[in-house]
Amino acid sequence: MNTVELIKKKRDGQSFTSGEINFLINHYTKGHIPDYQFSALLMAILLKGMNPSETAALTNSMLNSGKIINLSSLKDYKVDKHSTGGVGDKTSLIIAPIVASVGVYVPMISGRGLGHTGGTLDKLESIPGFRTDLSLSKSITVLNKCGVVLIGQTKEIAPADKLIYSLRDVTATVESIPLITASIMSKKLAEGIDGLVLDIKTGSGAFMKSHQDATNLANSLIQTAKSFDKEVIAFITDMNQPLGNYIGNWLEVYESVQVLQGKTKNDLYDISIKLAGAMIYLGKKAKSLQDGEFISKQKIDNGEAFKKFLEIVGLQGGNVNYIINPNKYPKSKFVKKVIAKQDGFISEINTYKIGMASLELGAGRKTKEDKIDPKAGIILFKKLGDFVNKDEFICEFHSDSKAKIKLAEQMILESIKFSKKKPSVKKLIKKIIR
Amino acid sequence: MNTVELIKKKRDGQSFTSGEINFLINHYTKGHIPDYQFSALLMAILLKGMNPSETAALTNSMLNSGKIINLSSLKDYKVDKHSTGGVGDKTSLIIAPIVASVGVYVPMISGRGLGHTGGTLDKLESIPGFRTDLSLSKSITVLNKCGVVLIGQTKEIAPADKLIYSLRDVTATVESIPLITASIMSKKLAEGIDGLVLDIKTGSGAFMKSHQDATNLANSLIQTAKSFDKEVIAFITDMNQPLGNYIGNWLEVYESVQVLQGKTKNDLYDISIKLAGAMIYLGKKAKSLQDGEFISKQKIDNGEAFKKFLEIVGLQGGNVNYIINPNKYPKSKFVKKVIAKQDGFISEINTYKIGMASLELGAGRKTKEDKIDPKAGIILFKKLGDFVNKDEFICEFHSDSKAKIKLAEQMILESIKFSKKKPSVKKLIKKIIR
Repeated sequence: MNTVELIKKKRDGQSFTSGEINFLINHYTKGHIPDYQFSALLMAILLKGMNPSETAALTNSMLNSGKIINLSSLKDYKVDKHSTGGVGDKTSLIIAPIVASVGVYVPMISGRGLGHTGGTLDKLESIPGFRTDLSLSKSITVLNKCGVVLIGQTKEIAPADKLIYSLRDVTATVESIPLITASIMSKKLAEGIDGLVLDIKTGSGAFMKSHQDATNLANSLIQTAKSFDKEVIAFITDMNQPLGNYIGNWLEVYESVQVLQGKTKNDLYDISIKLAGAMIYLGKKAKSLQDGEFISKQKIDNGEAFKKFLEIVGLQGGNVNYIINPNKYPKSKFVKKVIAKQDGFISEINTYKIGMASLELGAGRKTKEDKIDPKAGIILFKKLGDFVNKDEFICEFHSDSKAKIKLAEQMILESIKFSKKKPSVKKLIKKIIR
Repeated sequence: MNTVELIKKKRDGQSFTSGEINFLINHYTKGHIPDYQFSALLMAILLKGMNPSETAALTNSMLNSGKIINLSSLKDYKVDKHSTGGVGDKTSLIIAPIVASVGVYVPMISGRGLGHTGGTLDKLESIPGFRTDLSLSKSITVLNKCGVVLIGQTKEIAPADKLIYSLRDVTATVESIPLITASIMSKKLAEGIDGLVLDIKTGSGAFMKSHQDATNLANSLIQTAKSFDKEVIAFITDMNQPLGNYIGNWLEVYESVQVLQGKTKNDLYDISIKLAGAMIYLGKKAKSLQDGEFISKQKIDNGEAFKKFLEIVGLQGGNVNYIINPNKYPKSKFVKKVIAKQDGFISEINTYKIGMASLELGAGRKTKEDKIDPKAGIILFKKLGDFVNKDEFICEFHSDSKAKIKLAEQMILESIKFSKKKPSVKKLIKKIIR
């Protein structure tokens, strides 16, 4: 096979055979196809698309570029959740212990912060001592012991995805549904799972801005998962405002603990219960989604979910004292409250900008080399539809830099709009597709 | 400016400003934009297109990446011809001396063989001693002395084009009208010409297979040239069979000499007269295209064109003895005549395959490192519409390898179709656009 002829084929809108896709992925992964040819191919794929069988074949090639974890020795079902990412989205920290406490295994491979969004690994690592870089064998030991493990993508898992992802990032070829599908599914299938719950976010803080794009991605993911005989339930959820009230790594761990302890019952609680319920249902420990939700609430109310969280933190090297007594955690040098300059209902939040403000404060990376400040971030006191009096506090910034707080304050004031009438607030769960 | 954002812009179908195009070309030429980003951009340009002002700006950036030859000291007009390439297309060798003999300067920068087509430089270099790699100053001296110089693209001329072309070649991004336009025009404009005659070939042996594509390319080239205040005449010509009867480097020099001496008056003669006539007209030495053709015929009939050719060969280091006595030229070890296996009119010639057969015999390169055998090639005894008796000779192969001849014979027999009825032969000149 000839690489240039294959690029031509996709450029001219034709479909690849699975043999051709295998050739391309294997040769690129081995370094036999140079980046400059592969990036031209990626652009052709983005602009000309791939049909479902091509997407499945691409997923399969990327999956088989690395190891597939064998969890057949675990007799109960293995289920994971994947979110396409948003601002303040910390559901993994809440869901994983709930589901594991029911007896469904959760082998969860997560990512780092990307663009304006935070990453589960960065959040977990804000807990002093917490290790997300466990080896595969150590991970399986942890999974065996407590039913859940929270790790990052190891070198052994889908190395083709790692290579391709970093090329897409610098060649404007990220926003392609077949490429996104293969990237997500190759990693998730490598986990050795039986079922998967998808949280596809849409709105101003999501990568998929439109409901239609989110639905298309959900359908592509479901179709691909089904071709591998995996059960999937996809939730299309709203990301027109941050999820919960805390944004920033440790701040999000703190809010997750509040939810796990039953102290906070906000939108973050609601969506976590829904997603965990679906995972429990796919793990055959509930008769229906509703039954799964009921069980999830129980596990929070009876303290078992929180206990499971402490167990995970301990097993992965984290210091549980900070979880039990969050007040002991180091504080940012500067904490600044932002005051509303007018009366009104909050009618719109540019969630992307809120994410960028949090990154600016130190909670994210601008370049790959940047170090994250785990303490930094934003606490929102008001959300969409809330009434705010002039001079009332809207939010609070945490940072070690006064200059960064000034910049973030400007960004926040630009990103919140007020109205005189109470706006209708969008549904959190827009659609469930299975 | 940010490269990824610019790639996104084109990917999403937006237009570039000339500042953005300058940024991309300058930074790529300097090595500040890596190949893998530029190839994704090229694919986006191929699939999303460029409008005429973008194409002009791209041409301008590529032109200004190198030197523009200053020929203002020459008082007469400077005119060149560009052909998009075909099989047996040796018109440059005939046209350049005709036009120069009239007193129009011809500063001609040509290329090497590409794919199934031969290159003017390779043909000229089959003349022992002929140098096409003259420096710019030496080229101007030759041009001053005899009114014509035939050279290759030097390092100083449009270096951006050289870089971009070699990337396009390996990333399936050759077939883009704006990219082809900028590549051709940046080099031609660097020659310091006043006018340009274009020979856009269409058919089975051309890069532009369809008449529509050829017309679109002609219009794009004309529009771009006009934006630089250059006069252009474009001929859309037929390439559904080789031009003339000789294919292969020295064989083509031989046929060109036959035409220049007035001994051969075939399709090659006809088209050369037309193109030379247009150049003479653009050079203000003829009142009309017809007048230009008349003058061209005169220059062949009175021997001045051939005399000019001998002068060029001598000035560029070539041994004129081989031109005067072509029989002295070395012969291929094997000469094999191919016999028709049936009666009939030749109704179709797969000209691409004829070109590939000639390459196979040694007249072209399969990789950049391959050496050309100047003696190798094909002589056609029959062309489209000719009647062939069974056991009559169709063509003759020249090669130093028997195995290659066997392979080429197979290819030739596959590429010629016969019919019982005399087919209508297509017009050589399909359209003239100005």
